Amino acid sequence: MKELNTLLDRIIQRVNIDLREINYNVEPFVRQLVTSDQMTKFYAFYGITPNHPLNLNFKHSNLSGSYFLGKSRIANSLLYKTDIRGDELKKKNEIFGYKNFKIPVNKDEGISIDDSFLIKTLVHNFSHDPETLETFFIRDTISTHYANIHGSPSDGCFLGPFSTVDLTTMRDCLIGTYSYVQAGEISHLDIKPGTLWIRQPDEFNFIYRYPLDQLNEYIYFTAGRLPQGILMDFTEDRKEAFQRVFERVDMETTLSVPSNASLDRYAVVKPKTRIGENVLVAQRAYLQNSSLGKGANAQENCYIINSTLQGNNVTAHGAKIIEADLGKNVFVGFNSFLRGRPNYRLTIGQDTIIMPHTIIDNRKPLSVPPNHLVWGMVKDEKDLARNSLPLNDFSKIDSHFSTGNMLFEGSGAAFVTAFKNRIQHILEANGAFFNGTENKGHAQQNQNISFNIIQPYPDGDKEGLYPTIHIRP
Amino acid sequence: MKELNTLLDRIIQRVNIDLREINYNVEPFVRQLVTSDQMTKFYAFYGITPNHPLNLNFKHSNLSGSYFLGKSRIANSLLYKTDIRGDELKKKNEIFGYKNFKIPVNKDEGISIDDSFLIKTLVHNFSHDPETLETFFIRDTISTHYANIHGSPSDGCFLGPFSTVDLTTMRDCLIGTYSYVQAGEISHLDIKPGTLWIRQPDEFNFIYRYPLDQLNEYIYFTAGRLPQGILMDFTEDRKEAFQRVFERVDMETTLSVPSNASLDRYAVVKPKTRIGENVLVAQRAYLQNSSLGKGANAQENCYIINSTLQGNNVTAHGAKIIEADLGKNVFVGFNSFLRGRPNYRLTIGQDTIIMPHTIIDNRKPLSVPPNHLVWGMVKDEKDLARNSLPLNDFSKIDSHFSTGNMLFEGSGAAFVTAFKNRIQHILEANGAFFNGTENKGHAQQNQNISFNIIQPYPDGDKEGLYPTIHIRP
Repeated sequence: MKELNTLLDRIIQRVNIDLREINYNVEPFVRQLVTSDQMTKFYAFYGITPNHPLNLNFKHSNLSGSYFLGKSRIANSLLYKTDIRGDELKKKNEIFGYKNFKIPVNKDEGISIDDSFLIKTLVHNFSHDPETLETFFIRDTISTHYANIHGSPSDGCFLGPFSTVDLTTMRDCLIGTYSYVQAGEISHLDIKPGTLWIRQPDEFNFIYRYPLDQLNEYIYFTAGRLPQGILMDFTEDRKEAFQRVFERVDMETTLSVPSNASLDRYAVVKPKTRIGENVLVAQRAYLQNSSLGKGANAQENCYIINSTLQGNNVTAHGAKIIEADLGKNVFVGFNSFLRGRPNYRLTIGQDTIIMPHTIIDNRKPLSVPPNHLVWGMVKDEKDLARNSLPLNDFSKIDSHFSTGNMLFEGSGAAFVTAFKNRIQHILEANGAFFNGTENKGHAQQNQNISFNIIQPYPDGDKEGLYPTIHIRP
Repeated sequence: MKELNTLLDRIIQRVNIDLREINYNVEPFVRQLVTSDQMTKFYAFYGITPNHPLNLNFKHSNLSGSYFLGKSRIANSLLYKTDIRGDELKKKNEIFGYKNFKIPVNKDEGISIDDSFLIKTLVHNFSHDPETLETFFIRDTISTHYANIHGSPSDGCFLGPFSTVDLTTMRDCLIGTYSYVQAGEISHLDIKPGTLWIRQPDEFNFIYRYPLDQLNEYIYFTAGRLPQGILMDFTEDRKEAFQRVFERVDMETTLSVPSNASLDRYAVVKPKTRIGENVLVAQRAYLQNSSLGKGANAQENCYIINSTLQGNNVTAHGAKIIEADLGKNVFVGFNSFLRGRPNYRLTIGQDTIIMPHTIIDNRKPLSVPPNHLVWGMVKDEKDLARNSLPLNDFSKIDSHFSTGNMLFEGSGAAFVTAFKNRIQHILEANGAFFNGTENKGHAQQNQNISFNIIQPYPDGDKEGLYPTIHIRP
């Protein structure tokens, strides 16, 4: 265990040095977050398919319970139950468009993680930084429970639980609990908990801040303790269901899955769940008594319980949908928590966009109309009126707009178009539009994945560290 | 599946070219031995421990159900449920003694398997060839069910089912079904089925030939069919017990195992089994209602059923002991089949050596006295009288001796001494003599092994092939 402990010390020190300007000491937050016993208890695994690139390198790291697909290199890092999905990386000779630049990709891109500690984090997509097209790097970074690092290279950062950085390059930043940042490029920022920030320089800037007293009930993080609140309790309560999935080498399902859909063998599916055509269910998704219509996708760490999704629904990484009925094309962003009640269901009309990190927790029936944009904390009709807008109205904003804790500047049309394009791209990438021959996506390409299982040294100085492993096609 | 099939063609052709002088076409024997369905069905696995070297390289191969420990390199090969135990290889700067030569080992030895097809084969130990100290090579070789390649580099050979080559370097040889060869160096030989041949040039030569009509009842191999007979039926009947062991990621045992003993998690242990101190139970061993006394070992593919072993017993790779009571220090060699009956038990006195590939199948009570050497086919007292000799008497042979189908030339004393030294070495290596601080062996060093699981491409041209994998400390 000696080397493992030294490694944690080293990572904590490196991050503290990077965050010295913000004057933030990560140590009391991080030291006890994952015990060394947990770090040696779970196997890591990686997928082998003919449909994805394969290039994995593990060195001097602990990878407990983590999942790898595609291309990545992990060195001197601790990855606890973290998902590294390097299956959407850029390929050599592709052209990356950034504003007026058309930048050729020089070599196949890879994810590169050094000197970092990631806990139950999802790393996905590709580097959206035009300065570093070929390497999606994560260096000197600590991310905590259910953080999402999505297309976001990171150097010297600390991410609070349930925070998301999306299409953002960040250096020496602190991302607060449950904050969502999509801002292109940031450095030396201390993003406070519950901040929802979407910026496209010269185009628009969207900021919402959660009322902290209300947010703390859902997720609260303080030094020396695990993250607390409804979001943590919700996942902890369902942890056991995953045990069964992980303790067997092969899983068989009695559920009928259409030939153009895919259900990951590391997903939990409880009765009675229906999976439609072109549906993608990722590893660590949890489905219970729900219906997923054609082209819907259920991404990593999402939960869909007692709900119906009409079709082409995106349930993004970490989103939770409970006792709800969603129309077609409803998008539910990262780590959103949508909870209706058995007798007071939540209804969401078609084409509505639930922004990332939205909490809807209604105790009376609540109906979100179609074609709306919804954000922030919504507990009733009143909150909904304050924290939503018809997409058409939003598109008409041309300089600024403010309601409740939300402030928008710039072009509403550009904002809505960017969002819609992105949703379209996500559906496409996940195979929602596959017609039997064209538009293959993850739903079709992930049908048949072999998983290899790797474990650490069981004893000695290297206890908990994994051997050096290189995997190529 | 395309590349997998091409690979099999390539291996068959290479071996046929090597065996052209013997004029032996392996194709009809090999083509259908393992279906491609089987080759893609089982995961391979390798052990990680702080107590063993680690250097594994897999390239363009199928490894279905195979096990790896220590150091080896596998390329362009098919290894089906084969065990590659590279944990007793020579280390750099060791001195290898061969007659008057004292040969320094230049670099750490590795097992190297190219262009070969090994089926349920055990590869173990180190190269005993003074010409190739640093590489234990297996090239252009096909070995069939339950063959043992023990310290025996091989080039261009075919091994029949349940055959063993032990401390022998062989080129372009055919080793018949159930033959045992320990002969130093051989080439261009066609060893007929049921041959037991132990030779040390200038020292001794031991030859026994099984009566083929009797052997065929136990093991028979012909073109276009799987091996047949009692030995195959015996293992097939117990196959199911192993399924449970392989389908779970972690195994827990309720059996009490002393702190200085080890029980591999890929062994089958049925009630009521007792494991004594310093006992080693290897992967794929099968124990049922038996007692293993202090320092006993149960090696790969062995079965010990309704039997008692007093202590310091070697049950070598593939040996089977049923309804038998063995005294202390009884050695049971490779692939021996010792079967008493519930009411007619088999008793073996202490210090007796059951030579490799011995079949004792008594239908009346049978008692093998202590301090004897036993070989060949023994069904009753009469056979035993013909196929055994007190070790003391054997030691007195000084030129030649013959009884039944056995012929011995040379020094009986040298033969017995060599055997006894070897048994001593095996007990030592397996940790039988561990006293709490000194004489650690496999029983102590294999207690805590992590296993990593690897699987092939599930689809496409590469279906059934494993990705390229390198593993280092």
